[in-house]
Amino acid sequence: MAGNEALRLVARELELLEGIGGLLHWDQQTQMPVRGGPLRGEQLGLLSRLAHERLTSTRFADALAEAEAVGGATEAERAGLRNLRKAYDRAVLVDPALVSRLAEAEATGFDAWLGARKNEDVAAFLPQLDELLGLLRAKAAQLDNTRAPYDVLVDIHDPGTSAASLRALFGRLVPEIHRLVEAVRGRPHPAGVEGTFPIERQMALCREVAAAIGYDFDRGRIDLAVHPFAVGLGPGDVRITTRYDASTLLPGLGGVIHEVGHALYEQGLPWDLAGTGVSEASSTGVHESQSRFWENTIGRSLPFYRWLAPKVREAFPGVDVDAERLFGAANRIEPSLIRVEADEVTYNLHIAIRVEIEIALLHGELPLSELEGAWNDRYAELLGIRPPRPSQGVLQDVHWASGAFAYFPSYTLGNLYAAGLGAQLWADIPDLWERVEAGDFAPILGWLRSRVHERGSIDRGEATIRRVVGERDLVDDLLGHVWGRHGALYGVTR
Amino acid sequence: MAGNEALRLVARELELLEGIGGLLHWDQQTQMPVRGGPLRGEQLGLLSRLAHERLTSTRFADALAEAEAVGGATEAERAGLRNLRKAYDRAVLVDPALVSRLAEAEATGFDAWLGARKNEDVAAFLPQLDELLGLLRAKAAQLDNTRAPYDVLVDIHDPGTSAASLRALFGRLVPEIHRLVEAVRGRPHPAGVEGTFPIERQMALCREVAAAIGYDFDRGRIDLAVHPFAVGLGPGDVRITTRYDASTLLPGLGGVIHEVGHALYEQGLPWDLAGTGVSEASSTGVHESQSRFWENTIGRSLPFYRWLAPKVREAFPGVDVDAERLFGAANRIEPSLIRVEADEVTYNLHIAIRVEIEIALLHGELPLSELEGAWNDRYAELLGIRPPRPSQGVLQDVHWASGAFAYFPSYTLGNLYAAGLGAQLWADIPDLWERVEAGDFAPILGWLRSRVHERGSIDRGEATIRRVVGERDLVDDLLGHVWGRHGALYGVTR
Repeated sequence: MAGNEALRLVARELELLEGIGGLLHWDQQTQMPVRGGPLRGEQLGLLSRLAHERLTSTRFADALAEAEAVGGATEAERAGLRNLRKAYDRAVLVDPALVSRLAEAEATGFDAWLGARKNEDVAAFLPQLDELLGLLRAKAAQLDNTRAPYDVLVDIHDPGTSAASLRALFGRLVPEIHRLVEAVRGRPHPAGVEGTFPIERQMALCREVAAAIGYDFDRGRIDLAVHPFAVGLGPGDVRITTRYDASTLLPGLGGVIHEVGHALYEQGLPWDLAGTGVSEASSTGVHESQSRFWENTIGRSLPFYRWLAPKVREAFPGVDVDAERLFGAANRIEPSLIRVEADEVTYNLHIAIRVEIEIALLHGELPLSELEGAWNDRYAELLGIRPPRPSQGVLQDVHWASGAFAYFPSYTLGNLYAAGLGAQLWADIPDLWERVEAGDFAPILGWLRSRVHERGSIDRGEATIRRVVGERDLVDDLLGHVWGRHGALYGVTR
Repeated sequence: MAGNEALRLVARELELLEGIGGLLHWDQQTQMPVRGGPLRGEQLGLLSRLAHERLTSTRFADALAEAEAVGGATEAERAGLRNLRKAYDRAVLVDPALVSRLAEAEATGFDAWLGARKNEDVAAFLPQLDELLGLLRAKAAQLDNTRAPYDVLVDIHDPGTSAASLRALFGRLVPEIHRLVEAVRGRPHPAGVEGTFPIERQMALCREVAAAIGYDFDRGRIDLAVHPFAVGLGPGDVRITTRYDASTLLPGLGGVIHEVGHALYEQGLPWDLAGTGVSEASSTGVHESQSRFWENTIGRSLPFYRWLAPKVREAFPGVDVDAERLFGAANRIEPSLIRVEADEVTYNLHIAIRVEIEIALLHGELPLSELEGAWNDRYAELLGIRPPRPSQGVLQDVHWASGAFAYFPSYTLGNLYAAGLGAQLWADIPDLWERVEAGDFAPILGWLRSRVHERGSIDRGEATIRRVVGERDLVDDLLGHVWGRHGALYGVTR
């Protein structure tokens, strides 16, 4: 068997194992009996071991080396070899004992975080956090001891990003966002959408919206879950979950559109190239750009609500609502303590605070004893509110507790990429907003499919976006977007 | 690591892989998007390969040999080593090329069967059946060329059974069952239960029954599926599926109780011995005994319906029903052409015909050109009706088309074991039927748990039952049961 064929077999097996793990996670969140947890843990542990065995096998290494010796004949083949090489190197460079210790520390960290959050006791969580940071620094050093730990770790999720690039990015973005937040402070908010929204009807409406946007229900399904997510098992099976609250409409709807954005990306990946190392998402940030683009750029626009408003009135006859009211309610700027409840604008400040702090923690520039104070001070400075308790402050997110350092940047990267894509899309499809108002989303999806989705991970991270938008200033695009939309709504100008 | 520990690790991995496969099958039948099939096929194929790799690995072989050299300290340990050795030998004795050809022939056979059944064309299916039979004979010869093919294959599902033992068994059973069927022929049937049974209410009633019998919903769930089944993923997760028809009550209810019987067995297996080779079911026939016992022995008894009738009246207020009427309707004897719709009595004749024929086919004693005629003749002789078309005759079941020869005996073995267990249970718990009438099923489940479920596969097949019931004559028990219940209902005596 030629190197490429042998390589494709193992690489495909790795993808399949990941998809099976995805199904097990989905089932755990949506279907599994309450006492199925320990068994599920065993099953997922086995799948990880099997994937690691496969990835570090001589069979894989030999096939990869043989394929590299021949070289890729096309851009996609060369990119696939590069991606597979990176995956192999990452798997073999880290000492298996460290991988085990990290997995244990993540599990312990998660439990400690749950307890500390419940008891509002940051100090109780710090020893576990300290251990996790130590292990992550060790992992980063084993991967590449010539670079700073944060740069090594962030490269896993968002290739091409570094502590320095993020500091520069947020250094420009934060003052401008802060200026917008301050400009609207004290001004009257747009009216909200009041009413009762029976969950069955919300579900029906959201399914209609998902289908209109382009989500293929023959290759997916929507279920209820405590934590909304999207999971791509592979071609033909990309599922999303969501949650609804009968007292409010927009959060559930926004959640569905967000997850549909992720799912459209997964449904549009180049599955004909499965097993060649490029049929997966380009990066976490690019994934997030797809969800944010549909949720915010399209899904919170006035033309979108012009299309949606009659459907909302039909679904909820007693509710007094029109497009303008939906638009206003969805685009309020209200500084708050909880990231997952934040509006589109202040969301980036929540991320900025986390990125600043996690870089400092990982690089030993912020002692753990000062973590809570640093967090609270930055919230006071940037958002004008100080967390009264840790559960509403530094203990609110699960990420650090489960070892997910250097993951937060992807949220704001996603917003920036989405803004760039939106600006470019507007240039490419001049009647974009007329289309949206008419509920004709096919040109948008087609544009994203050919430019982003079908490229898979031929490019990684920002390079995927740059290929589409060129040298645009993404910070400018995002600021233009929020000042244009939110500033106008509040009657303030940049 | 000691041999036993190393062995337990791999053996547990094999169990986990099987459980993951079970989840994938369950999801395919209940949740999977319509276009998810090809991916699911890839995933299941990989799991098979991984399990086969594991089972035939030197790691497993060495650990097994080391553990055998030390020997088992307990009955369970010795039984576990025996079971794992058998699994290993089975995996390594069969040529992998034959395994692949068989898998292909099963897939082709299935497709050919679908087409032939649709076109009512037996001849179109015979070439594939011929190929399958040839491959199965080859597999049997590779496993053990000192025994007849059928004996080798039936041992996989029902250890301790052989063509000769089955011929002897059915030789006694068939004339007696046939005599009962003839005795009631022409006599008036008990009244049926007429009405409309909204599916939501059937589901609620069935859930109540399942819980009352002892099905633990914290470690399981019930879903709708086209083909009812039970699947045990491992401790903490044993799921069942079922289907309902709003025009009739008893088939849906019986189906749920049947699957709950399987599930109670899986939920009661000795999970503390996971990874030692004995925490699985004893045999297919013993599994079937658990479903049949609950479905028929308990679930079609008059005391059971005395407990159930008020619940049925409450769930379906318009339906004229009492315990006697439910009992009569559930125990009609009506010779019919379709196995899966057969009553408890004639069911065994359907199985007898299949077992006779599959032994003759596998041993080359029946030319394929005579298959359809032999089938139709036997239906005319034993059931008094002749299939008008193949879809209602020899092409009705999927088993042979998918290579499942020597599987049919387990259905009647299950009935025989259930009858023996029932007779013994009655001797051990004299107030059994008063308990059932009071809806107190815990003593029955407790009795089965300690005697059958918790023994797992320490004994295999009939030995599991014999340990509980001793040297009882199981054919006599089954005949006593059906003559006692159905004969009485029709006013005929043995």
